[in-house]
Amino acid sequence: MLSVRAWRALAPLYQGGHLAVWRRAQSQAAASRLDLSGIYPPIATPFTAKEEVDYQKLEENLQKYAQIPFKGLVVQGSNGEYPFLTEEERVEVVRRVRRSLPAGKVLMAGSGCESTRATVSMTERMAGAGADAVLVVTPCFYKGKMDSRALIQHFTKVADSSPVPVVLYSVPANTGLELPLDAVAQLAQHPNILGFKDSGGDITRIGLIVHKTKTQDFQVLAGSAGFLMAAYCVGAVGGVCALANVLGRELCELERLCVSGRWEEARVLQQRLIEPNAAVTRKLGVPALKQAMEWFGFHGGACRSPLQPLADAEIQQLRRDFSSNGWL
Amino acid sequence: MLSVRAWRALAPLYQGGHLAVWRRAQSQAAASRLDLSGIYPPIATPFTAKEEVDYQKLEENLQKYAQIPFKGLVVQGSNGEYPFLTEEERVEVVRRVRRSLPAGKVLMAGSGCESTRATVSMTERMAGAGADAVLVVTPCFYKGKMDSRALIQHFTKVADSSPVPVVLYSVPANTGLELPLDAVAQLAQHPNILGFKDSGGDITRIGLIVHKTKTQDFQVLAGSAGFLMAAYCVGAVGGVCALANVLGRELCELERLCVSGRWEEARVLQQRLIEPNAAVTRKLGVPALKQAMEWFGFHGGACRSPLQPLADAEIQQLRRDFSSNGWL
Amino acid sequence: MLSVRAWRALAPLYQGGHLAVWRRAQSQAAASRLDLSGIYPPIATPFTAKEEVDYQKLEENLQKYAQIPFKGLVVQGSNGEYPFLTEEERVEVVRRVRRSLPAGKVLMAGSGCESTRATVSMTERMAGAGADAVLVVTPCFYKGKMDSRALIQHFTKVADSSPVPVVLYSVPANTGLELPLDAVAQLAQHPNILGFKDSGGDITRIGLIVHKTKTQDFQVLAGSAGFLMAAYCVGAVGGVCALANVLGRELCELERLCVSGRWEEARVLQQRLIEPNAAVTRKLGVPALKQAMEWFGFHGGACRSPLQPLADAEIQQLRRDFSSNGWL
Amino acid sequence: MLSVRAWRALAPLYQGGHLAVWRRAQSQAAASRLDLSGIYPPIATPFTAKEEVDYQKLEENLQKYAQIPFKGLVVQGSNGEYPFLTEEERVEVVRRVRRSLPAGKVLMAGSGCESTRATVSMTERMAGAGADAVLVVTPCFYKGKMDSRALIQHFTKVADSSPVPVVLYSVPANTGLELPLDAVAQLAQHPNILGFKDSGGDITRIGLIVHKTKTQDFQVLAGSAGFLMAAYCVGAVGGVCALANVLGRELCELERLCVSGRWEEARVLQQRLIEPNAAVTRKLGVPALKQAMEWFGFHGGACRSPLQPLADAEIQQLRRDFSSNGWL
Repeated sequence: MLSVRAWRALAPLYQGGHLAVWRRAQSQAAASRLDLSGIYPPIATPFTAKEEVDYQKLEENLQKYAQIPFKGLVVQGSNGEYPFLTEEERVEVVRRVRRSLPAGKVLMAGSGCESTRATVSMTERMAGAGADAVLVVTPCFYKGKMDSRALIQHFTKVADSSPVPVVLYSVPANTGLELPLDAVAQLAQHPNILGFKDSGGDITRIGLIVHKTKTQDFQVLAGSAGFLMAAYCVGAVGGVCALANVLGRELCELERLCVSGRWEEARVLQQRLIEPNAAVTRKLGVPALKQAMEWFGFHGGACRSPLQPLADAEIQQLRRDFSSNGWL
Repeated sequence: MLSVRAWRALAPLYQGGHLAVWRRAQSQAAASRLDLSGIYPPIATPFTAKEEVDYQKLEENLQKYAQIPFKGLVVQGSNGEYPFLTEEERVEVVRRVRRSLPAGKVLMAGSGCESTRATVSMTERMAGAGADAVLVVTPCFYKGKMDSRALIQHFTKVADSSPVPVVLYSVPANTGLELPLDAVAQLAQHPNILGFKDSGGDITRIGLIVHKTKTQDFQVLAGSAGFLMAAYCVGAVGGVCALANVLGRELCELERLCVSGRWEEARVLQQRLIEPNAAVTRKLGVPALKQAMEWFGFHGGACRSPLQPLADAEIQQLRRDFSSNGWL
Repeated sequence: MLSVRAWRALAPLYQGGHLAVWRRAQSQAAASRLDLSGIYPPIATPFTAKEEVDYQKLEENLQKYAQIPFKGLVVQGSNGEYPFLTEEERVEVVRRVRRSLPAGKVLMAGSGCESTRATVSMTERMAGAGADAVLVVTPCFYKGKMDSRALIQHFTKVADSSPVPVVLYSVPANTGLELPLDAVAQLAQHPNILGFKDSGGDITRIGLIVHKTKTQDFQVLAGSAGFLMAAYCVGAVGGVCALANVLGRELCELERLCVSGRWEEARVLQQRLIEPNAAVTRKLGVPALKQAMEWFGFHGGACRSPLQPLADAEIQQLRRDFSSNGWL
Repeated sequence: MLSVRAWRALAPLYQGGHLAVWRRAQSQAAASRLDLSGIYPPIATPFTAKEEVDYQKLEENLQKYAQIPFKGLVVQGSNGEYPFLTEEERVEVVRRVRRSLPAGKVLMAGSGCESTRATVSMTERMAGAGADAVLVVTPCFYKGKMDSRALIQHFTKVADSSPVPVVLYSVPANTGLELPLDAVAQLAQHPNILGFKDSGGDITRIGLIVHKTKTQDFQVLAGSAGFLMAAYCVGAVGGVCALANVLGRELCELERLCVSGRWEEARVLQQRLIEPNAAVTRKLGVPALKQAMEWFGFHGGACRSPLQPLADAEIQQLRRDFSSNGWL
């Protein structure tokens, strides 16, 4: 059976018209898909007080994460402050993570840019730096023109040329844009697109995406800890959760309870995670995530400007959202 | 133990300051709460071609619904076109439903109006017409001023004077307003407010509401079939689902699967219901619900203006949403 | 030439097929349109402490308004708390205003309801109570279905049967819905629809509506004082402004400056009105309008629940918005 | 009198505490502010069929623009596709424009990036390439955290270090974020921030910004042709309008009519520009702008992916929006 990489190497040969052969290769490629199931922290990028990337602290975090039964790591998801990194920094962080990551763990790297050509190029660089898969966010500046036609073409071009499998990524809180369901359903048929991270949290939509892509063995990941259990319930296979930077073991435990059908226990745990999760995401954002990391033994470090440190009242609110649920 | 009604009769006596006694009565009242768990169709109101309420067709629908294991009926939820009914019609429809409803079924009647005084009055009339509980929607015209303070006072006044228990109702697609979580949490402590119908569908929020009200034995109902399974998963006890007007048995079956922990089977059924549900709610609305009712042996009838009959293309789309999921 | 009323009386005769005659009557009717140009306060409804309509205080307000060069009054616009009034109260308030209104002033009464049939009926009652024109808001509960097709049919039916001319009314802050431009353009051709009150404040859209309806002599009114001067600039003929309940003379002065082309002076005055206007509308709403009325010698009175009195901090903010612009 | 540049050079000296001297320098700097009044096309970036920057076509456009009485050019506003350019390309385009631009015309270059440090750096490079001023858009990816505190600090740091004056830029259709009024009012006091381009189009807000900044001689520019006349009416001094790429002379004529108080003529012209403007901005976007440029004798060229060429139906709609207003 062809691996995805082998398929990629052969694909150009088929494009002269040997469609039947190409289709066969496609389905073989699909059969060998990377298994994404499990929990991933989309890791934060620690900065020094001068806002330089703090590779030393990053390394120390990685060593701690290695002790937690994560499926892998996402590098440069939304809360990795990737829009604040230079291209060089984006690639270098991935290279460092690759070096530290224990064998068998999946490295998923965010490679999305606004233009298709920049995304294609960044995808190649991420693969070269050791990413097992890339997470590609919807372009969003021209949101009024980012309809299904434009997005399908964008992701298709990226997936066509990517040396590693592509995971689609929709995060409306940051982009102001949701990857439309019909686009997801069509893109799921591409042999090099193997999954979707949905951070929107509309559980009806997530259920429908699972339903519409079930013949493609398409892998859906919850993009936030707040609806992780519900996402498992409707058919997701894992989660990329900011909160896993802080409460990683607990999220892996929640995964285990869901996967083994222990829903009553899962519910109790899930409910205690909603407020801490909201605090480090939509309520108080990346600065809160980094603050909470400090409380739980990780290095958060500073944010790059224009992100500001939390105000005192915000720190207190953050603490309450953890302590009232028994985590502090 | 005091029934809720007895508690209501005694409550004024306690308000002179005998707070301890009152508190005790409260908890007793809470202990005897009406059990809301199960599936409810928020019944459509059939109209004649001249847009008069068609009580004959309503009666025939009720006889068919009596064969389905619903927990009860909701009369004058959003898709009952209640904003188009006169006050007299609102009450008369409830009276007719009461007369037809088999013993043991719960009649929940929508009694919400824009002003508190009108809601208080309509609530009394609904109770007089035989409602077991009232469903009270958030006032919404002055949405900019409908903060937690205003809404808590509104619902508290209504619940204070209501002869029957109150169920809160948030339906942002119609009202442009979500009942805030802190308001729900506070109102859940009122002895005469026993539950909440959430049609917004934010599963993270629903989970958090269950969590925040767990000491009050507060009953949360999913307000739409699209997220019914996920809502059960995070702790809801039932659903008020427009689609139950059409596929009532199937929704009761979904309930049974969720309640008995048969999640794999539930998921398969749930997924087939998402598109039909979306079609008769947010995509095509009440006219589509009524059209689909006709296909499945119920009387939908006309809508009142300004709601328009479906255009031909919409009817085809509606049919596809049912047929592609194996229902037609 | 036929008056609009005469046209209405004859219209049924023409509907058997005498279309040419009917068309002629239409254009004649259009030629005699009521002139709406000028400033209108959408009057507040004073309530007693027990939330009853305070007709005495209303009367006293009307006597004061009679001293101000308003074109007329709007009764039961959004800030008249009409959704909190019973049908009887709505009509009675109009009847009282009619009795007090000096000759030559225009009485425009809000007659919009959710259903077409209720709006038709309320329109007739308003005309019977003495309204010179009716202001008909977009129905909004089923906002997902209120497309141009539904709204055109709604307003056409209302205008067809109305004994007095109809003014369209779009107020998205309350309804969550904007009357679409193509619907306005088509409805402007109806002989009994003579204008449009736009409270949305999108000045590009207002300019385009003036442009698209210029052959119909359609009269556009600004729905708020914040963009009154800009609206005159792009072709509006007047304004229905909540702030006119408080600073009526000043708004009439602003009108005079705009109409006479004294734009530099107009600008200075307009700018001082923006913050007070925002304070009594979108920032703090009807309770703030009523509070400010008290400061300026009018009776505001209480609001009906669920509208709440202003908190102390809000009163201070309101005062600042007036005083920092030199009005207090 | 000190020039702004001289002030910048001296400013560090004053920060040890010689506040009075510093304040004086500030006011002197303010007095010599660059005059921004007039019309600017935010020029499109032509690409070849292979999506490379087509400097030859750019040059030819510039020669045509030199014949039109523009105040200057904006390079890399939103419709210049700057998010699709590399850093090198961004700077190179500015360098080329500088070389071609007739003496006396203002070159305003977009230098906004997501991080403060990248914006500081890009601002310096733009000044080095010959920009007379920089246009700095609000960072937007972390929109939930981009409150006034964060935005004030961001723009202050950029302005503190910028060798040329800074113009603030708010374009919510692209960023999902509006620069808050209080932030604008505070930033207007910075000696190196001399104006604001508002593409949101809320005329009430624009009027209030003019009002709140009147003691700073702060210059407000309309960010779109649809509300250009209204913006002049309330106190703006010019416009940066996508449509000026196509109908530049007409927009300069509209400016002349507004500035000379010929409002009646202005209104007629303004109204004919609304639909063409909407077509090349929010309705059909940059691809439509480039298509229309071709019709009017300029080079539009291709867009970079993921922006797609217009579909046939869109081209027809675009044509109608120009032809029905007498431009084609």
